[in-house]
Amino acid sequence: MNGRMVMRVLGWICLIYGALMLLPVIVGVIYGERVSQFLITMTGCAALGGILMIPAPTSRSLVARDGFAIVGLGWIGISMIGAVPFVLSGSIPHYVDALFETASGLSTTGSSVLQDFEGMPRCDMFWRIFSHWIGGMGVLVFLMAVLPMSGEHSMHIMRAEVPGPTVGKLVPRARRTAGILYLIYIGLTAVEFVCLLLAGMNVYNALLHSFSTAGTGGFSTMAGSIADFHSPVIETILSVFMLLFGVNFNLYYLILIGAVGKAFRNEELRRYAAIILAAVFLISLELHRTMSVPVRTAVHDAFFNVASLLSTTGFGTSDFTEWSEPCKWVLILLMFCGGCAGSTGGGIKVSRVIILLRSFRAEVQKMVRPRSVVRVQLEGQRVAPETVRAASVFVLLYMLFLLLFSFLISFDGFDIATSFTAALSCLSNIGPGMTKLIGPAGSFAVFSSRSKLVLTVAMLMGRLEIYPILVLFSPRTWQR
Amino acid sequence: MNGRMVMRVLGWICLIYGALMLLPVIVGVIYGERVSQFLITMTGCAALGGILMIPAPTSRSLVARDGFAIVGLGWIGISMIGAVPFVLSGSIPHYVDALFETASGLSTTGSSVLQDFEGMPRCDMFWRIFSHWIGGMGVLVFLMAVLPMSGEHSMHIMRAEVPGPTVGKLVPRARRTAGILYLIYIGLTAVEFVCLLLAGMNVYNALLHSFSTAGTGGFSTMAGSIADFHSPVIETILSVFMLLFGVNFNLYYLILIGAVGKAFRNEELRRYAAIILAAVFLISLELHRTMSVPVRTAVHDAFFNVASLLSTTGFGTSDFTEWSEPCKWVLILLMFCGGCAGSTGGGIKVSRVIILLRSFRAEVQKMVRPRSVVRVQLEGQRVAPETVRAASVFVLLYMLFLLLFSFLISFDGFDIATSFTAALSCLSNIGPGMTKLIGPAGSFAVFSSRSKLVLTVAMLMGRLEIYPILVLFSPRTWQR
Repeated sequence: MNGRMVMRVLGWICLIYGALMLLPVIVGVIYGERVSQFLITMTGCAALGGILMIPAPTSRSLVARDGFAIVGLGWIGISMIGAVPFVLSGSIPHYVDALFETASGLSTTGSSVLQDFEGMPRCDMFWRIFSHWIGGMGVLVFLMAVLPMSGEHSMHIMRAEVPGPTVGKLVPRARRTAGILYLIYIGLTAVEFVCLLLAGMNVYNALLHSFSTAGTGGFSTMAGSIADFHSPVIETILSVFMLLFGVNFNLYYLILIGAVGKAFRNEELRRYAAIILAAVFLISLELHRTMSVPVRTAVHDAFFNVASLLSTTGFGTSDFTEWSEPCKWVLILLMFCGGCAGSTGGGIKVSRVIILLRSFRAEVQKMVRPRSVVRVQLEGQRVAPETVRAASVFVLLYMLFLLLFSFLISFDGFDIATSFTAALSCLSNIGPGMTKLIGPAGSFAVFSSRSKLVLTVAMLMGRLEIYPILVLFSPRTWQR
Repeated sequence: MNGRMVMRVLGWICLIYGALMLLPVIVGVIYGERVSQFLITMTGCAALGGILMIPAPTSRSLVARDGFAIVGLGWIGISMIGAVPFVLSGSIPHYVDALFETASGLSTTGSSVLQDFEGMPRCDMFWRIFSHWIGGMGVLVFLMAVLPMSGEHSMHIMRAEVPGPTVGKLVPRARRTAGILYLIYIGLTAVEFVCLLLAGMNVYNALLHSFSTAGTGGFSTMAGSIADFHSPVIETILSVFMLLFGVNFNLYYLILIGAVGKAFRNEELRRYAAIILAAVFLISLELHRTMSVPVRTAVHDAFFNVASLLSTTGFGTSDFTEWSEPCKWVLILLMFCGGCAGSTGGGIKVSRVIILLRSFRAEVQKMVRPRSVVRVQLEGQRVAPETVRAASVFVLLYMLFLLLFSFLISFDGFDIATSFTAALSCLSNIGPGMTKLIGPAGSFAVFSSRSKLVLTVAMLMGRLEIYPILVLFSPRTWQR
């Protein structure tokens, strides 16, 4: 490990993260609120960042494990730092709660330990929800976009932070790729902001809900989430944008450079659309059949909640824990699946699901005809066996940690479905679970501090796709 | 596909399965019961077997897909035939119920749709529980042991029916291997029978519970399962034998030929023992801590239930659905794991779990040092990448079908935990689920006929390790 260079990058992260706290300070000043909690934390960030940058690196080269370590340590670090203002201001008095809330924000999960937060200062609320926006595209991708880092080495960081089975550069230089991704991200967020304003939200709510949607996070300024706006138009706008932020950002780049046809021929996008249609169809049929919901309302509710869970946002309008069991299972399957690779969504990712389903078919074909050559294809190209293998191992690790985390939080004594879907929701960065207690109308406040820490690890593991956290536990990572 | 040869083997299966019905006839004669239900079915078997054997095969060669098709079709066939006597005698009036019960027997699952069966004729009860013994070692392995089939080709059948990541021949000839396996199986069953007699069971109960344990099935003659004997000695004997039948039978062969040291150095066996110790420790600690159960009783109960679920037998003494949540999760993890490869137990199998956990470690090491050569080892030998890949795909398919079956049975309206653990229990060939309704004190009678059919497929898929059933759905299997 190139320790000094890793420390330097962590120092940068610290400084930039501290600088981002200027935004809640501005919000606080506008609304005439106390902002000392941010000023104190910013001073701490500056000091810590400065200390980390003191040892001059003898070499600027970073290898793969350095990239993983930077991302793993960086995300744990900013979760710990980001929690401080909440404790200082008293918005979230206990540090573990604040840590859970911040990790939930940064990992774009949106599970909350808060039950009544409408009295929270607006600057704190801004910081809480803005963390979704920071975490959505990634703080290191941002760093790469603004700092002079050599292209080849920074790809290791990008690979560790951007979700999906493979990471392609849009343009030859990683730095420009990161910049383009952020510009698309800012652009889409701005469009959503304008749409929400036009639909009647005030500036504050429109801004924060745009941040929340963009990161596919799910925090809301309202205790009752989106249901509190009582506006089908707002719900539809949010549904559409949740789904848009669950799409691979590379496709928006293709559209920007005029390759619209190529973008729409994207196989992952088409499967993503097919999943949405199938899920909306099944759920609205069930809602209509079992609860006599009028077709129009059923489709509207189904669409919103499918968008919310598949994109892994987790906004709530209706309490789906009261829906029929098959509806819940469709939603659970969506929670596993998640958004597209290279989006801000969590979960296993649509492209991995496609790759694995095709590898199953190939496996059966190979059993039937052992000598036949069967290839797994995606986007019209052969998927390298190494990529299939990596996708398999990833999903197996996903399942393993899902069961492990479920077991660890079961000591709180909640039923199997609560433990299981809480762990799934955190690992897939969604937000609500599938039982009353932790559903859209519930809260993760019911869990003990120990379980909150377990779920904090789950959320970060989910956002970083497991390895950056796992790598920290390998002694080899820390060798020179 | 060599259709005529496949038909011929299926014909043999039919004849042998019909011949096995002589045993319940003898039981019926001894107890002076009506046995016409068996005589009618035997006549049907003889006729069907005869018809299937009419077309003379032009070639006796069988390729891999023929082996899978024979095993898949054969098991579906005997499940359907074996259900007939129950309907004819009226013990289980509805055919779908009888089919579920028979598939549950043959697949050694032990889930029952019967609620009060103590009035069932003894010959029917014998047939119900004897099916565990038939299914445990496999009807095709039996066929191979007694019929002259060419060695090389019959290995395809053995591979498809014997569980585990790889199947080794004990001796160069597959036929002798099958014979040895059956002799060990009969021997161990006989030893258990004697032990149970000595512990005070009557001949009838001792015989049937030996069959049930040997197949790691779980059916009992008593409505309250093993709890009804009120004998800690019987419970301990059964615990030990359940675990013994969850061990790879190759190890018993090693012991028989005097290679005792080699058998005990077996890595899968050691890990199996470690899992048992860890699970018993955790559960008895929890029982003592949360329910103030005396240490001795806690260890006894924990040992019985760990043995029951890890070996995938499913005998019941206490209602573990009333235990604390962490206990349930430990049991759920055991339900996934299952017994050793080459045993009569179900589940993912210990050796696959070891292989996968080591491949995860190798994956992380490779991430940390991309150029290092990392090998996955088992039993002191390098595991071929192909075997690691096959184990990964198997477990992924396992998870996929687990979620799919859970979804399909959720239409019955039971809660998430009931659907999930019912599907898991059937897929892992265990028996009880982890909620009150379907736990040791419950019954699968609560499910609809449609769900019973889904779970029937799950049980057969679990017993045959998925592929023999899946292969039947590939059009290529049916091509010449």
